[in-house]
Amino acid sequence: MKESRRKAGRGRVVIDRVEPTVPCGPGEGPFPVKRVTGESVHVSADILADGHDIVRAVLRCRPAGKRGWREEELEPGSNDSWHGRFTVDAPGPWEFSIRGWIDHPRTWRSGLRKKHDAAIVSEVDLRIGAALVAKASERAGGADGLRLKALAEQLANEALAQDRRVAAALDRHAEELVDAYPDLSCATDLPTPLRVWVDRERAAFSAWYELFPRSCGAEGRHGTFRDVIEHLPEIARLGFDILYLPPVHPIGLTKRKGRNNSTEAGPDDPGSPWAIGSSQGGHTAIHRDLGTEADFLELVDRAGSYEMEIALDIAFQCSPDHPWVREHPAWFVHRPDGSIQYAENPPKKYEDIYPINFETEEWEALWEALRGVFLHWIERGVRVFRVDNPHTKSFPFWDWAIGTIHETYPDAIFLAEAFTRPKRMYRLAKGGFTQSYTYFTWRNSPEELRQYMTELTRDHPREYFRPNFWPNTPDILHEDLQTGGRAAFIARLVLAATLSSNYGIYGPAFELMEHEPVRPGSEEYLNSEKYEIRSWQRDDPESLAPIISRVNAIRRANRALQSNRHLVFHTVDNPRLLCYSKSDDSGGNVIL
Amino acid sequence: MKESRRKAGRGRVVIDRVEPTVPCGPGEGPFPVKRVTGESVHVSADILADGHDIVRAVLRCRPAGKRGWREEELEPGSNDSWHGRFTVDAPGPWEFSIRGWIDHPRTWRSGLRKKHDAAIVSEVDLRIGAALVAKASERAGGADGLRLKALAEQLANEALAQDRRVAAALDRHAEELVDAYPDLSCATDLPTPLRVWVDRERAAFSAWYELFPRSCGAEGRHGTFRDVIEHLPEIARLGFDILYLPPVHPIGLTKRKGRNNSTEAGPDDPGSPWAIGSSQGGHTAIHRDLGTEADFLELVDRAGSYEMEIALDIAFQCSPDHPWVREHPAWFVHRPDGSIQYAENPPKKYEDIYPINFETEEWEALWEALRGVFLHWIERGVRVFRVDNPHTKSFPFWDWAIGTIHETYPDAIFLAEAFTRPKRMYRLAKGGFTQSYTYFTWRNSPEELRQYMTELTRDHPREYFRPNFWPNTPDILHEDLQTGGRAAFIARLVLAATLSSNYGIYGPAFELMEHEPVRPGSEEYLNSEKYEIRSWQRDDPESLAPIISRVNAIRRANRALQSNRHLVFHTVDNPRLLCYSKSDDSGGNVIL
Repeated sequence: MKESRRKAGRGRVVIDRVEPTVPCGPGEGPFPVKRVTGESVHVSADILADGHDIVRAVLRCRPAGKRGWREEELEPGSNDSWHGRFTVDAPGPWEFSIRGWIDHPRTWRSGLRKKHDAAIVSEVDLRIGAALVAKASERAGGADGLRLKALAEQLANEALAQDRRVAAALDRHAEELVDAYPDLSCATDLPTPLRVWVDRERAAFSAWYELFPRSCGAEGRHGTFRDVIEHLPEIARLGFDILYLPPVHPIGLTKRKGRNNSTEAGPDDPGSPWAIGSSQGGHTAIHRDLGTEADFLELVDRAGSYEMEIALDIAFQCSPDHPWVREHPAWFVHRPDGSIQYAENPPKKYEDIYPINFETEEWEALWEALRGVFLHWIERGVRVFRVDNPHTKSFPFWDWAIGTIHETYPDAIFLAEAFTRPKRMYRLAKGGFTQSYTYFTWRNSPEELRQYMTELTRDHPREYFRPNFWPNTPDILHEDLQTGGRAAFIARLVLAATLSSNYGIYGPAFELMEHEPVRPGSEEYLNSEKYEIRSWQRDDPESLAPIISRVNAIRRANRALQSNRHLVFHTVDNPRLLCYSKSDDSGGNVIL
Repeated sequence: MKESRRKAGRGRVVIDRVEPTVPCGPGEGPFPVKRVTGESVHVSADILADGHDIVRAVLRCRPAGKRGWREEELEPGSNDSWHGRFTVDAPGPWEFSIRGWIDHPRTWRSGLRKKHDAAIVSEVDLRIGAALVAKASERAGGADGLRLKALAEQLANEALAQDRRVAAALDRHAEELVDAYPDLSCATDLPTPLRVWVDRERAAFSAWYELFPRSCGAEGRHGTFRDVIEHLPEIARLGFDILYLPPVHPIGLTKRKGRNNSTEAGPDDPGSPWAIGSSQGGHTAIHRDLGTEADFLELVDRAGSYEMEIALDIAFQCSPDHPWVREHPAWFVHRPDGSIQYAENPPKKYEDIYPINFETEEWEALWEALRGVFLHWIERGVRVFRVDNPHTKSFPFWDWAIGTIHETYPDAIFLAEAFTRPKRMYRLAKGGFTQSYTYFTWRNSPEELRQYMTELTRDHPREYFRPNFWPNTPDILHEDLQTGGRAAFIARLVLAATLSSNYGIYGPAFELMEHEPVRPGSEEYLNSEKYEIRSWQRDDPESLAPIISRVNAIRRANRALQSNRHLVFHTVDNPRLLCYSKSDDSGGNVIL
């Protein structure tokens, strides 16, 4: 007989199928469900015991590592399913558990009531109750103990009329007093608490604006952080709260890409910001033409004064000129000819990029260095990261990196640019990513959107996966926007901003309705900012800026749009229309 | 960084959502899924890795505790779901696991094929392959090692035409040879194997016949085991393989029940066999009027010669005269007046029965004694037990008792008489009960039966819950049988015997179509054998015996009826008809 079983031998309550959980296992997890500060966790469980005795159970919760529990009684529903809820009021790890027990005083009262109705109460019935109440008195002590002692004596007092004693036992206040001091000697607890990860509110409600700083200069000139600072009031007026910058690091020279992704770069071509690293430094360095670290710190600071945060793009790949290539050759795959393996998807080659080898025997140093990139920028005030192609880096690495960063910085937000198959997308979210890009861009018909939102908000992803909807990105100019004109831009904006509480646009390409593809059938932009500096006519009278401002203002004014938990689709006859509403937790704010 | 994470750091494969499992947790389980010898376990899992490299995975299985694994390659399906199967060929505990890894040789070949099609194979590509094959050669050793070494040299041999070397790399036999020696240094295994409990075949395919031995005597006389032996040929002709006897122990005298459950027993009333225990002994003793232990052993032996097994009824409750009441007072609840608490369901009293107190501080001795009852009869050749009201005894006790008995006697079969709410019924099955009584008796319309069978055979119960369908029991004479006549008896027999591969009848009441209730609206029999000795007219020409024989013969001849795994309902227009078919694993045997 196992020791754990021996200890549990007197407990008759079993607790099973506790929800919410993140479905996984047995190879993986358990992963925490996710909430943001102020949200509720609705808990359900199957709580069973043998026989006909009355079961009671409490839901217990606390920030992980704290002593003591907040407790609330669970309510039995139909078919042995019990329900309760608690609210998480601080970011970080939380845990909850369930304790269940057979409640003998309640069982006794239930029997007493039936016997009283049948007029078969006996003296011994009352003495059984008196003994139970006397034990509650011992557990209570103090004033309540004295009150309970008096009740026990009253129940056992044969000089009093039986009816009067039955009434005393069944008095509501007496019941509450007895119930407040249950006998927990045979109670059953969950063997381990369940986990909840609580993010700050912006994790669930955010509007992102992506911008290439180098295109913020005056006509022709390489833009700088100081130029971005100049644009902050305008972006704030648009109503965004996260300003996301593509990689700000030195760009490689070897095999640098030219305009429109040509394999030959001209002498003035700036290269792709995602070809990270040069003799000037790697992932912790700043591109010389963007400014100094002091400039960057000022940008972070000034954005804060507009209630905006700067999000950095973390892309774990290296140009051939990246310092790591020289300093840590073991982090890359070497070919028999001594060269380093560049990225390829045969027959395509990407010779300006070296992928990182997560199977390296020096993986511990690698993991520390990669996490160190996040910590470097966190120490400089950044708390929001857009992570480039996380699904091409080791899942166990992300579990560890985000998990340990969150231990110290629970306010860090990680957006996964995981345009990949659904289970890999969900796996990254389970392992810690705060938000994720989605298939929204390619869900265009009302039925496609309804199905996709139902999967995201009704099925298990709702517990751990927070979608972030983007009508466009520097990599994706959908055919709808290429051909749909102003109406398509507005429709996609409104869908993104109202279906999903997290959304973003890549601007000013979006508000200026940039729509020319590099060639027919491609989703790449013509003259993409990824490979050249652009200059934008921000004061174009056709700009969608006023509409964007209005949409963001409506989002801020309506709590219903700040979460996806209460999204409902309504039936419409026309299959080309989509009708939906959202409400807040209280149901007080509803948007149709 | 946790040590386990450090070790796993180079593994890029993650394995999630492995099936089949028994849904439970985190308070409970994990419980094993159940199979019988010869059945297959179809396994699925989500197997993911970062990037675009090719993943391979094997399913590994073995009888628990054995060294080495049987391995079979898993096949990738759609959406990162992988599939495989194994067959369990011996009773007892089994386990299975999954191992997944990035396969570099396969990834390389896939790229080589594409490059070859695009005519861009370079010398270094072939040298990469040669290096991979050379490593496989080291892993292989022996003759295969030499073959692989030759292949590696061929690939790297620039004197040979490139096309010829590509063809050598992509030769099917060469591929198989390389694949047979994968690099597992970064493989991912499940942290713990999953469990399968394998019963012998009778656990899934059995026909039970319940009989009161005391009614087997000649007119008026108390029947004996020897009388039962006389009836064995007849029961064997009926086609049953389990002969189930109500409790065979001494019956209490105190508060003994009289005929038709009257609270006053006459001097000749034999009492209820479920009021167990008298001065002559308790759960390990034999009622004097039934015979001796030698008689019982002969009955077990003779039943075996007809390929039948004796099932005993284990009812953990005591008459006031049971030796345990005197020897182990702590196993019962004592009232303040010194008396022992009898069973009650207020306002009803059952004063002939003392329930056992599973919250006793002497629970360890209690558990050992209760398990000892099973072991006592197991040592006397009994392997099949019908357990009375298991849902009124502690669930943790059953988990332990059945679990530990199965360690030594994997052939033991436990049928739960759990007429209770569904989750309690299922919980007993999860915890180890082999079969269970069901709601079949009260599922009468075609739609009710279709829904119920769908729940049992399509939803999660299929992995652990084996229904046993009974048209009647000594406790349940359904209204259908009271009023439906011969047609109702035949319909319910055929439904039970064909919908469920395990079924049983209480006879001879069934074949003689006993149908009078004790009073209108009751499901109790008039003149129930539970309280008196009956004498049955077994040779009644109206008896259903020939039909029962025929039904059981059809079940034995058709593997389709020996499992519930492949039950399918077919559409019929008439809502009063039920159309279904069953097939065996191979699909070769189909019954409509």
